[in-house]
Amino acid sequence: MKLYETYADEMADLIRQGVLPPGARLPSVRQAKLQRKVSASTVFEAYSLLESRGLIHCRPRSGYYVNLRKGPQTLEPRTAAPATESRPVAISDLVFEVLGSSRDVGLVPLGSAFPSPKLFPLDKLAKALTPQMRGLAPAQLTGHLTAGDEQLRRQIALRYGTSGLRVEPGELVITNGAMEALNLALQAITQPGDIVVLESPTFYAALQVLERLKLRAVEVATHPRAGVDLDSLAEVLRQHPVKACWLMPQFQNPLGSLMPAEAKQALVRMLAEHQVPLIEDDVYGELYFGHHRPLPAKAFDTEGLVLHCSSFSKSLAPGYRVGWVAAGRFAQAIQRMKLMASLATAVPSQMAIAAYLETGGFDRHLRQMRLRLEDNASAALRCIAKFFPKGTKVTRPQGGYFLWVELPAHIDALDVHRRAVSAGISVAPGHLFSADQRFHHHLRLNYGFHDSAELAKALQRLGGLLCL
Amino acid sequence: MKLYETYADEMADLIRQGVLPPGARLPSVRQAKLQRKVSASTVFEAYSLLESRGLIHCRPRSGYYVNLRKGPQTLEPRTAAPATESRPVAISDLVFEVLGSSRDVGLVPLGSAFPSPKLFPLDKLAKALTPQMRGLAPAQLTGHLTAGDEQLRRQIALRYGTSGLRVEPGELVITNGAMEALNLALQAITQPGDIVVLESPTFYAALQVLERLKLRAVEVATHPRAGVDLDSLAEVLRQHPVKACWLMPQFQNPLGSLMPAEAKQALVRMLAEHQVPLIEDDVYGELYFGHHRPLPAKAFDTEGLVLHCSSFSKSLAPGYRVGWVAAGRFAQAIQRMKLMASLATAVPSQMAIAAYLETGGFDRHLRQMRLRLEDNASAALRCIAKFFPKGTKVTRPQGGYFLWVELPAHIDALDVHRRAVSAGISVAPGHLFSADQRFHHHLRLNYGFHDSAELAKALQRLGGLLCL
Repeated sequence: MKLYETYADEMADLIRQGVLPPGARLPSVRQAKLQRKVSASTVFEAYSLLESRGLIHCRPRSGYYVNLRKGPQTLEPRTAAPATESRPVAISDLVFEVLGSSRDVGLVPLGSAFPSPKLFPLDKLAKALTPQMRGLAPAQLTGHLTAGDEQLRRQIALRYGTSGLRVEPGELVITNGAMEALNLALQAITQPGDIVVLESPTFYAALQVLERLKLRAVEVATHPRAGVDLDSLAEVLRQHPVKACWLMPQFQNPLGSLMPAEAKQALVRMLAEHQVPLIEDDVYGELYFGHHRPLPAKAFDTEGLVLHCSSFSKSLAPGYRVGWVAAGRFAQAIQRMKLMASLATAVPSQMAIAAYLETGGFDRHLRQMRLRLEDNASAALRCIAKFFPKGTKVTRPQGGYFLWVELPAHIDALDVHRRAVSAGISVAPGHLFSADQRFHHHLRLNYGFHDSAELAKALQRLGGLLCL
Repeated sequence: MKLYETYADEMADLIRQGVLPPGARLPSVRQAKLQRKVSASTVFEAYSLLESRGLIHCRPRSGYYVNLRKGPQTLEPRTAAPATESRPVAISDLVFEVLGSSRDVGLVPLGSAFPSPKLFPLDKLAKALTPQMRGLAPAQLTGHLTAGDEQLRRQIALRYGTSGLRVEPGELVITNGAMEALNLALQAITQPGDIVVLESPTFYAALQVLERLKLRAVEVATHPRAGVDLDSLAEVLRQHPVKACWLMPQFQNPLGSLMPAEAKQALVRMLAEHQVPLIEDDVYGELYFGHHRPLPAKAFDTEGLVLHCSSFSKSLAPGYRVGWVAAGRFAQAIQRMKLMASLATAVPSQMAIAAYLETGGFDRHLRQMRLRLEDNASAALRCIAKFFPKGTKVTRPQGGYFLWVELPAHIDALDVHRRAVSAGISVAPGHLFSADQRFHHHLRLNYGFHDSAELAKALQRLGGLLCL
C-alpha cells in the first residue's frame, strides 16, 4: 500500500467516525506536512483520492472539506425482542421452497447469499493452481490430509498473527467451506436436544443445521449496528442450560452489525464464566469498512473456548470450498469429526489458495473489494430512501454485503418474494431468519454486485413492486 | 482397446475361471482364426501379451499352454460367525490410536487404506484442470452447486449407462469423497439408536460413522470370496428392526469378496421385501480383476431403495475429494443433507475430473492399474505362502487391493502392529474391523504398491517379525 493511500484511509476513518464531521475542513497541506512529516504531493494525492471517492470536496483558495453527504432519509430498525423460550427448529422446508424458486440464474440476485463472483481474482487463482498441481509429490495427495495442507495452515496462522491473534497451525482444521466447519463445531460440542443460542435475526443456514442436528434454538436480542445485546444474553444464560452459542460478532448476516471490541471481550468473559463454547462464524471478517481489521472475539479468548470459523468463499475463492476452524481446546475433537465426516478437504483447492496467498495479492484484492462494497452500500441506501415505501427502515452495515430492510408491517415478505421472482429479481424474505418466522415484513438484500448500475436499477424496480 | 487386447482379455478370463485349467492347451492359431474370424497376427499378439503377463507359455512345435502356476500353499479363511445381537459402537479411540501411530510417512504402507498415489495419472489430471479453471464463467462458482457440476454428473451417468445401469444425472449428488456420500446416506435414512447391518469383518470407517451418528451395528456373516451370506442376513432381518444396510458387494474392504450377480439380485429383493434401504459402498467397483465390470447391486434395484455410493479417490484422483451417490428415491433428501452439511463440493476438483473423463483416458488408465493390482496380488500371495507362519490363512481377492490375513490364533494383531511400526512397516490390525474386536489375530494388508519389489520385501520382513 502506498503512503498516500494509507494517509487517505486514515482520513476516511476520521470522517466515518465523525471526528471530521460533514462540513469540517481537512488539515491544510502545510499542517499535514508538519504533523505527519509527509510531502505535499502525498497529501495532494491522498486528498484527490478522497475526492474521487466522494468523501471530500475542494473549495478554491480555501481547502478541502468533508462532503455534506445527506444521510439516507430512512430510519434504522430497532433491536428485535425475540421469544424467550427455546424451541426445536423446523424451517428447512420453507428455506428450500424459497431457495428453490430463487434458483433461476436469470434473476437479479438481490436474494443471493454470495457476492458477485466477478469481484474475485479468479484468473489469478487458476494461474496459481497450475504449477502447484503439476509439481505435486504424489504422496501429498494421500498423506495426512485430515487437518489440511500444511502450507495453507501456515498461511492462515500467519494472517491471524499479523492481525494480532496467536493461532498455531496445529489448532487449525481445514474444512469443506465454513459450512462444514460450523457443522463439525456443533457436533463436537452438542448432543441432540441441547440448546444453542443464535442471534435474532440469524442466518437461515444456522437454523437449518440446528434442525438437522435436532438442537433447540434460543434467540438473543441483537442490535442492528452493535450486534448481540449482552444483557439479553445474560438473561438467556440464566434461564437456559445453554450448550453453545453460534454468533457472528462481525458483519452479522443479515444485519451487518459489528460488536465493539469491548463488547466482544465482555461476551467472551461472560461465556467463560458459564463455560459455554462460542462458535464464532466470521466469514465476513475480511469485508470490513474502514482502515483496520477489527479483532474477532477469538482474540479475547484465554480458555480455548472460542471456535473461530471462517473461509475463503466470501473473500477470495467462491466455489473452491475451503474454510477452516481454529478450534481452541476442541481442535483434536474437530479433527476426528472431520475424518469421519469427509476424511479431508480437496487438495487442488487448498494448493491454489496457499499459492495465491504466497504471492501477496490477497490484501490488494481485499482493499479493492471493500471499497466497492462500501460504495455499493451507500448507493443502495440512497436507492432505498428514494424508491421504497414510506416507513421503510434499513440497517447501516459496518461491513459485508447485506442490508436488512424492515418494510411497513402490512407488507408480507413471502408475497414480496413471489412477486419479485415473477419480475426477475430474487430477495431473501425475513421469514427465513428466525425459528419463529417473526420477521415477516423484512427482507435481506445483497448489494455485493459487480455492476452498481445494475444494483440501482434492481432496487428501483423492487421499490416499484413494494409501492404497488 | 485394440482387438488383440480384447482377445487376450477374453482368454485370460477363461484361464481365471478355470475353463482353461493349468496345463491346458490354448486354441491353435488356425482354430482361433476360424472360430473367431481374427487374423493370425491378432492371435499371435494376444498370446504374446498373455505370455508377458505370465499366464501362458509356448512349447516349440506344439502350441501355447496355460502355466502350471502353483497356487499359493495357504488356505483361505472361513466365513466368520458374528455376534447375533446389535450393539452400540465404540471403536474410534482405538482406530485413532492405531492410525495415529501409523502416520509416519516413512513407514512402508501395508496398513494404508489407499493405493500408491503413483498409480494415478496425476499429471494428466493437472493438465486437464488448467484450461477448465481459466475458462470458467464466474457464475459457475456460485451457481447451483449443491448437486454438483452438470458436466461431471453427465459423465458419471454415462459411465453407469455403458455398464448397463440406468441412472439419470438428476439422481446424482456429488460429494466430498465417498465418505461424505455414506454419511449423508445414513443421515437421510436413520435416527440415533437405529440398527444398521454391516458385513463381518467390515471397514472400520463404517464403524466410526455409526459411532458418530449413535447408531447400533449388527454384523452379518460374510464369505471371503462370495461376500454377504444371505441366510445370515435373512436371520438378522427376522430378529432386528433394521433401518439400513451398509454393504460392499464388490471387492469388500477388507475381504476383497465379490457377490455373484444372482446373490446381488437376491440381496436387493430380500431388502425390498423388508423395505430396508441398501447403502452400497462401491468405491472399489472399477478395480475388478477380469474382463468385464461386474454389475453393482444397484443394477437390480427397481424400487429406488439402493443408494449407490462411489468416488474417484481409489480409481483416478486421490486427494481431489470427489465422490457421489446415486440415491434413488432418496435423491432429494440427500441433496438437502448435502446443502446443510457442506453446501457444495469443490469446483476445481470436479472440473478437472470432468475434463479428464472427456478425454477418454480413464479406461486406459484403469486397465493398466487393474493388471498391476492383479499382478501384485499374486506376488503378495506367494510371499505370504513363503514367509508367513505355518497355519496362516489368506483371502483370494476378486478385485481391489487388500488381502485379509488370518494369523495363527496365538498371535495378537495389535502386538504385530506395534512391532511392525517399530520395524518401519504399517499394518491394519484386525481389531479395527468389527464392533466387538473379534478379529484379534487378523491383519488387512494393502498390496496397491507401485513398486512390487518393495511390496515383496515388506512382506518378507513382516513375515520375519511374525515368525519371531
